[in-house]
Amino acid sequence: MWELAEKDLEALATGAAILGAGGGGNPYLGRLRVQASLRLGLSVRVMEPDELHDEAVVVSAGGMGSPLVSYEKIPQGEEESRAVRALAEHLGCTFDAVAPLEMGGGNSMAALVVGAALGIPVLNGDGMGRAFPQLHMLTYLFYGGSPAPAAMADEKGNSLVFTHLADAETLEALARQVTIQMGGHAGVAVPVMDGLHCKQTIVPGTLRLAHDIGRAVMEARMRKSDPSAAILAVTGGRRYLRGKVIDVERRIAGGFASGRVVIEGLDGDTGRQAEIDFQNENLILWEGVEPRVMVPDLITLVTTDRGEPLTTEVVRYGYRTDVLVIPSAAQLRTDMALSIVGPRAFGYEFDYRSFDGEIARGGG
Amino acid sequence: MWELAEKDLEALATGAAILGAGGGGNPYLGRLRVQASLRLGLSVRVMEPDELHDEAVVVSAGGMGSPLVSYEKIPQGEEESRAVRALAEHLGCTFDAVAPLEMGGGNSMAALVVGAALGIPVLNGDGMGRAFPQLHMLTYLFYGGSPAPAAMADEKGNSLVFTHLADAETLEALARQVTIQMGGHAGVAVPVMDGLHCKQTIVPGTLRLAHDIGRAVMEARMRKSDPSAAILAVTGGRRYLRGKVIDVERRIAGGFASGRVVIEGLDGDTGRQAEIDFQNENLILWEGVEPRVMVPDLITLVTTDRGEPLTTEVVRYGYRTDVLVIPSAAQLRTDMALSIVGPRAFGYEFDYRSFDGEIARGGG
Repeated sequence: MWELAEKDLEALATGAAILGAGGGGNPYLGRLRVQASLRLGLSVRVMEPDELHDEAVVVSAGGMGSPLVSYEKIPQGEEESRAVRALAEHLGCTFDAVAPLEMGGGNSMAALVVGAALGIPVLNGDGMGRAFPQLHMLTYLFYGGSPAPAAMADEKGNSLVFTHLADAETLEALARQVTIQMGGHAGVAVPVMDGLHCKQTIVPGTLRLAHDIGRAVMEARMRKSDPSAAILAVTGGRRYLRGKVIDVERRIAGGFASGRVVIEGLDGDTGRQAEIDFQNENLILWEGVEPRVMVPDLITLVTTDRGEPLTTEVVRYGYRTDVLVIPSAAQLRTDMALSIVGPRAFGYEFDYRSFDGEIARGGG
Repeated sequence: MWELAEKDLEALATGAAILGAGGGGNPYLGRLRVQASLRLGLSVRVMEPDELHDEAVVVSAGGMGSPLVSYEKIPQGEEESRAVRALAEHLGCTFDAVAPLEMGGGNSMAALVVGAALGIPVLNGDGMGRAFPQLHMLTYLFYGGSPAPAAMADEKGNSLVFTHLADAETLEALARQVTIQMGGHAGVAVPVMDGLHCKQTIVPGTLRLAHDIGRAVMEARMRKSDPSAAILAVTGGRRYLRGKVIDVERRIAGGFASGRVVIEGLDGDTGRQAEIDFQNENLILWEGVEPRVMVPDLITLVTTDRGEPLTTEVVRYGYRTDVLVIPSAAQLRTDMALSIVGPRAFGYEFDYRSFDGEIARGGG
């Protein structure tokens, strides 16, 4: 058990945003939400998944919606707690712990706010090991968790509980429409699981990993050393390209922020160009006609000078950026997982290939 | 208490469709659903609202969606029962009676199917005294009922419960999006109310009225007399125009079937022309630039020869039709009600005026 202090938040939010692969919400806004909780005297305890009893009652929670929307319609911090409370009232139970839905600057923090508000520990881990745009892309769900009951809530006091659902894709489809109607952002609580299922399916250690990444970035800034190198020393992976953002296409459709970022190589990468497709998160990195890095592996943009994560809602023309590629968690690369979070699941006509042998083995 | 027999169904569905004012679902499809229940040996008991104890626990139920959709995606008969069951499970209660949401060929029958499936009486009345396109247009709600909890269900086994809602308009907005995602039709259960509130807000007697209207039509057919005259003898109101449908514009947008029907006068009405705007239900009857009949008063088309209701999803070029106008229930003409179901609530820039003095007093 690790009690979170206000001084940890900047590192945690920054690192989580780097793990968010372009999505998962804005780290600055996310951090303010937890800060407010701590300043109210609430505490946030982070617990290791293996400390859970098999019979513990666990819920996962986070925000749903286009990050572009939540950048303007600022999450109020209560949406996820309301969703969790609606679920607890519906079930007539209390939860022993809350697990983050996904990593990301907003969604790592959302789980911490829930833990603080409900006085329950937050598990060190999450259901994606990164961020993904859709709810059924949760390890908790595609490794056998039940999509119902699930709850949603908004900042206006509206909440609902899905009591029976045919499958997780139906949850995603219904919840997406509700999110749009709720103004483009909503708090979600799903799934309810026992401690055993949580331990078996969570991507463990990601809150601590996010914190360590963020610390490494902050130390690199102080030492005026290369923040990207510091990130990769913690995560594995490699810098794919150093360059400049020369184009961003972005559109909001179906509740997602989708588009493409084009990066022109600079310094040692002069003459190269990478294009990255995103749907809330970065999905595929192309060089020429070749897909070179693809979901579920992480494609993350950080500013070259300070290692600031450039999420898909803030990236714009002119940023000097490093394109980092980080191998995804092993749980995301099984055949089952790839059918849900691999390139074909996003409409691409090719199978997952790891970036290269080194990346697949987690090397730097 | 009145136990419904299979022989009552045709009259009831026909009369309810006439009260549906163009909406409320297809009477033929609706009737088949109840018939199936009765043939399974289930019984449907109709109960007078004033037989309810003040403390009875009552729920209203019906179908939501564009009638044009439910004409192709045929309601399975279980959607509303599932919604009611989801609500009962959520609350941990049983219901003492079910009240129809609205009149209409489908929605009168939907409540009967729920009553049969759950073995509880169906109240002789409804929450609109006709059909309206939106959920917050229920007397149960705008006279003080709570929009939450409310439940929805589809034919695939999906269900959800709205646990907290800011207001009835939010229920309508969220439920509409869910309905669209559920394929354009869903079962809805709302509100939960006590017997006292139900008695105070229900438009009473409408199931019996529907049955009597339908009987009058069937008798007129047997006697080869004028079915429209038979309808008006039961309901009050008048025949506005006898003519022929010469144009129908219809579009599906936002989960509604909206459009306009144009009727050219024949016989004694030669030279006149009426245009009727509809949004699922008929809203405004225009003659030239003048709105002559308007919500909440009922505008209903029936075939001239047989008195068959022409709901907005089946009306088409060439039908010989009588345009009947029937005064709405007194509960719909208070200032409160008119702010929810009057012309301005549908975006028109004029206030409600009753068709004429005679109509307002219920005269023929």
